[in-house]
Amino acid sequence: MQNDTTAAGIAGLILLAHGSRDALWRQPIEAVLGAVRQTRPHGLAACAYLEACAPDLPTAARGLVEAGATHITVLPLFLGTGKHAREDIPKLVQEIRHTYPQVAVELEPAVGEHPRVTALLAELALAAMEPSGRSGS
Amino acid sequence: MQNDTTAAGIAGLILLAHGSRDALWRQPIEAVLGAVRQTRPHGLAACAYLEACAPDLPTAARGLVEAGATHITVLPLFLGTGKHAREDIPKLVQEIRHTYPQVAVELEPAVGEHPRVTALLAELALAAMEPSGRSGS
Repeated sequence: MQNDTTAAGIAGLILLAHGSRDALWRQPIEAVLGAVRQTRPHGLAACAYLEACAPDLPTAARGLVEAGATHITVLPLFLGTGKHAREDIPKLVQEIRHTYPQVAVELEPAVGEHPRVTALLAELALAAMEPSGRSGS
Repeated sequence: MQNDTTAAGIAGLILLAHGSRDALWRQPIEAVLGAVRQTRPHGLAACAYLEACAPDLPTAARGLVEAGATHITVLPLFLGTGKHAREDIPKLVQEIRHTYPQVAVELEPAVGEHPRVTALLAELALAAMEPSGRSGS
């Protein structure tokens, strides 16, 4: 198995989402992981959840470190940016850095803050408003 | 003021998000509304929230109906698809249809189910994994 090995080391990715007791909640999140794996079939990538779904972030991080990751990027799949994104997630990431001081752990901004996400959601909204885009008209 | 008037009537849009007690949570959601308004400055568009933020969906719908909307599109800004997206939101939309039988209310799938959203989030994740995209390396 070949990983994303570069001069900078072996890269790992964690897609971190909120989670829900609802078993179907995570399907769209796992679809993002599936799309990542289409591009990097041998890369180290995993989902993780804050609540109610497994694995949690520490477990996902351990898995990537044990698989050889030397850099881990955490991308929060959150649209709104509240206490989870601003406080809880940075705290969890800091704990992972303490647990694996040899691993560089990067925390990305929540995806809802990304201008391309804003633009795409606005585009979908405008398209849905078009008479041709409305299923009922 | 000129609205989005077509042969099919006056279109309204509601961006429906989860909401949070955190005052900053809604900023990325309102950024989507801002982007919609850049394209349609005279359109009828509003945000609404399930929890902890105002307005709720019935209040937002009433505002659009009172402003003249004859069609309302509800776009759920949710990445995961659980009980909220599958049960709570359809129930709320059904109540709005009962309240305003003269208004056509369309409920879109949650944005997390849209293939373009999946693709963009995967693209952002892959870009964040690149050594050049990592702030710490």
